[in-house]
Amino acid sequence: MSERQVLIPQIAYDRIRNQLDELPHELTVLCWSPTGITLADGSPVTPSEYAPEVGWIAIDTMFSGEFPSFAAALLEPGTVRWVQSCLAGIDAPPLLKILDAGIRLSNSDSPNAGVAEYVLAAVLHVQHRWTERRDNQRSNKWVQRGWSEINGTKWLVVGFGSIGGEIANRARPFGVEVVGARRTKVQDPRADEMVTVDQISEVLPLADVVVLACPLTNETRGLVDQHFLSQMRDDAILVNVARGPVVNTGELLKALDSGRPDHAILDVFETEPLDDSSPLWDHPKVTLTSHVAGAGSGIVGRGDQVFLEQLDAYLSGRSLRLEVRS
Amino acid sequence: MSERQVLIPQIAYDRIRNQLDELPHELTVLCWSPTGITLADGSPVTPSEYAPEVGWIAIDTMFSGEFPSFAAALLEPGTVRWVQSCLAGIDAPPLLKILDAGIRLSNSDSPNAGVAEYVLAAVLHVQHRWTERRDNQRSNKWVQRGWSEINGTKWLVVGFGSIGGEIANRARPFGVEVVGARRTKVQDPRADEMVTVDQISEVLPLADVVVLACPLTNETRGLVDQHFLSQMRDDAILVNVARGPVVNTGELLKALDSGRPDHAILDVFETEPLDDSSPLWDHPKVTLTSHVAGAGSGIVGRGDQVFLEQLDAYLSGRSLRLEVRS
Repeated sequence: MSERQVLIPQIAYDRIRNQLDELPHELTVLCWSPTGITLADGSPVTPSEYAPEVGWIAIDTMFSGEFPSFAAALLEPGTVRWVQSCLAGIDAPPLLKILDAGIRLSNSDSPNAGVAEYVLAAVLHVQHRWTERRDNQRSNKWVQRGWSEINGTKWLVVGFGSIGGEIANRARPFGVEVVGARRTKVQDPRADEMVTVDQISEVLPLADVVVLACPLTNETRGLVDQHFLSQMRDDAILVNVARGPVVNTGELLKALDSGRPDHAILDVFETEPLDDSSPLWDHPKVTLTSHVAGAGSGIVGRGDQVFLEQLDAYLSGRSLRLEVRS
Repeated sequence: MSERQVLIPQIAYDRIRNQLDELPHELTVLCWSPTGITLADGSPVTPSEYAPEVGWIAIDTMFSGEFPSFAAALLEPGTVRWVQSCLAGIDAPPLLKILDAGIRLSNSDSPNAGVAEYVLAAVLHVQHRWTERRDNQRSNKWVQRGWSEINGTKWLVVGFGSIGGEIANRARPFGVEVVGARRTKVQDPRADEMVTVDQISEVLPLADVVVLACPLTNETRGLVDQHFLSQMRDDAILVNVARGPVVNTGELLKALDSGRPDHAILDVFETEPLDDSSPLWDHPKVTLTSHVAGAGSGIVGRGDQVFLEQLDAYLSGRSLRLEVRS
């Protein structure tokens, strides 16, 4: 057994075993499943042998609900030096535990293309009134009605990182003008204009669509409050694909009821799953989904590639393209 | 009164009068409304004075249903030499009459950006299962389910003209590979690959999405028949934003029922309005709208600009960017 042990969910290992074999490194793959840890050939790993240096939280553990138990197995021996996560965000409790333990953690950009695709689809869905169109079809109603293009609209993307850039790349060919907002002043060719978060007040009254794509931090928690909402246009759409607590839900509901903004598209919530009694479910100005923006089909293949590239870099002692600064 | 009379719907004239005034040409604007024809100052035009050389079928006549009566007023004196239409297609009966009378006719590309936006929205709507998502919201159901990205899919666009190009410009940044098909072999940088209509059979088995964006001609009438459909993938989506008769509806229904292709998005039909008894309305594999793909909000402004530019070219004796070869 090589001294360098890499812990991988069995189901993910089955998918990338050939690509792992091609890596120019000596390593021992440990396959994790809910029933135990084995070597690649299926033979069991004894507790005295178990000393993973690397762990990969593959997307499969999210789909199966096994993320917490996999993360627990990873942390248990205290030998892990580096973990590759499949998520963009780093606020999930198991990830915070990894950071607290002083272990290097890499997040992933594999969800991002899917999140951007979700945002475009969601805004087009609302803007073109597809729910009304589908209801008309269900009622055999031939309704010829003009509709509002996103062409010529202005979008403010709060948190213009990798996801924001992917959104801009897809929106701008539609004739959308994209303003990106970041904490610090930077230039970014993917946006038509960049501002700092402090300058958001100048852009909010002009934005037809405001997309929240920022991490959840002390600064972004509650960012979208009564003051923020009151600066939006009365025909604007708010989109939250960041984290629920970035928006104050109570104040959002009041703002929608008072007519400004016009609509909210929400994929994330202050508590998840969203409580059955939440007024968001039935609100006519809310379109909601169940935290699925990142669950696009391409995440699996993109996540595999991120892990393989990063593992190669890690084992070679090179710097990592994706690493969370704690 | 200038000898060069231009007939314009009153409502459209009210919108562009300032821009018309700025054109460096002597012309007399005749304002048409259902109650009669007047000069710009509101004074009536007598039958003996009425001799329009140019007519503009503005989009307003489509929204109001006045297109046929405006076209009739245009043709009546026999003096018109050139007509600018707001439509991309030239198969509407009043336009055929204009062509039959030997009058120069320009079509318009003003609908095209909207049609392309519609196509992207419609495919994203179906592919991401937004109807199911909205039904889940209506039932307070928290359903976390992966979804299929258009990222990495291959689209065949049959009739790769101005609309096809606009579709490609929007689809490719999502990671979509676009194959364009035209009657004759051409290169087009907007597509990843160009084929001739004769080569469609080679692409159909590979295409995840097939978009019909061709004019209705003797060659395209009934193009999508049992043979065409049988070559499609069983998970493919067919989109018709061309004209209803390009698709044989009966054979499409049989094909959907037999499981190939998986879904049809239809904005146009063999007879419109679609008959209340059509099985398309209730078919679970059909998403339909009421011939609205071109009715995006931007069509008004784009149509005004097309007319103003073309009118300037016509009155200057220059060649027209848009002119139908009959």
